[in-house]
Amino acid sequence: MIPIISIVGKSDSGKTTLIEKLVPELTRRGYRIATVKHDVHGFEVDQEGKDSWRHKQAGAHTVVISSPKKVALIRDVEKDLTLEEIREKLIQDVDLILSEGYKKDVQPKIEIFRKEKHKELLCTKEDNLIAIVSDRKFRVGVSCFFLDDIRGVADFIERKYLQSEREGEVSLKVDGKRIPMTPFVKSFVASTVTGMLSSLKGCGAAKQIEIRVEGEGK
Amino acid sequence: MIPIISIVGKSDSGKTTLIEKLVPELTRRGYRIATVKHDVHGFEVDQEGKDSWRHKQAGAHTVVISSPKKVALIRDVEKDLTLEEIREKLIQDVDLILSEGYKKDVQPKIEIFRKEKHKELLCTKEDNLIAIVSDRKFRVGVSCFFLDDIRGVADFIERKYLQSEREGEVSLKVDGKRIPMTPFVKSFVASTVTGMLSSLKGCGAAKQIEIRVEGEGK
Repeated sequence: MIPIISIVGKSDSGKTTLIEKLVPELTRRGYRIATVKHDVHGFEVDQEGKDSWRHKQAGAHTVVISSPKKVALIRDVEKDLTLEEIREKLIQDVDLILSEGYKKDVQPKIEIFRKEKHKELLCTKEDNLIAIVSDRKFRVGVSCFFLDDIRGVADFIERKYLQSEREGEVSLKVDGKRIPMTPFVKSFVASTVTGMLSSLKGCGAAKQIEIRVEGEGK
Repeated sequence: MIPIISIVGKSDSGKTTLIEKLVPELTRRGYRIATVKHDVHGFEVDQEGKDSWRHKQAGAHTVVISSPKKVALIRDVEKDLTLEEIREKLIQDVDLILSEGYKKDVQPKIEIFRKEKHKELLCTKEDNLIAIVSDRKFRVGVSCFFLDDIRGVADFIERKYLQSEREGEVSLKVDGKRIPMTPFVKSFVASTVTGMLSSLKGCGAAKQIEIRVEGEGK
């Protein structure tokens, strides 16, 4: 699963600027980064009058604009998506997701804090705070970095989320709903699936297997 | 799998207008529609200066803007995606994908044709042409509809692609690549998976099962 880290902080603390500096630093190290920005006010991304804009106006649930270098998608949702839902429904082909904001989401958080603007931290370790980027030091049991120490923050993210050996991960969804499994069942499912497929051409040294079965089992 | 139909036709034949009429007709019938538009010239969907725009400028591979009613995504691609790749990477939660153009793609096509503008059809049955919408009749072995017969076209799409009983479908991806399977292997995988899970809580009458196994099998 793609790791998610939220860059949180009170307003005007420099969240966007921190992301603007982290993205090229991590990209330079060979990682592909996705960012997520929450927009409470709604937004307008397409241009009035364009064909794709006309499709959406006509009531299309989802509109995709595809070109040789980039693709855009606009889709309806019934409620604010969590970061996990965004990862599951929308994001592929990246190594890390950095969100701006989302302080109420459960994902790990790096808080940016400026002493001349704020009095107290926004998050605690209980909010899954993993690091602070600030112009002062804190003793709250998480790593601290100075505001300009982008390489230090990138090292921290890389060490903790990008280089860790990926543990085996087994997930099961039935009719779109995630089914919890005990470690025993996970291991049983993983062994059965990898065993069943092991002699199939192209499946020998599989690192990731995805099976979909549709239609009622007989 | 979500069915895909391409609305094709020479330039100025009325492709966008046909989609603008089909989308509300099918939506009224309870279907969720996604549309896909190809843009050879590239496009600009986000607004300069916005936080999400700054993320993309900083080099993010993917940028998501999320709000309570809609979500937008902009991502880099290495080449023009086929409609099948767009379905696989980007589209969820809809019943039908209508693309505008994509006459070279393999998906089924409905051609729109106006006699005062064009001399010959763009597609033949060999191009997977399934219907023609026109102000004249053709005898080329596919269904014909008059330009204003939106309900007729919607009936045809509904009958052929939306009401057909979904056949059992089994797919397998290993390290992101689709692995072809013979009917025997498909049936073997489906039976093993449904059998293995049948006694697991929540899996009794599963209509769709999705398993992901990550990490090297031991």
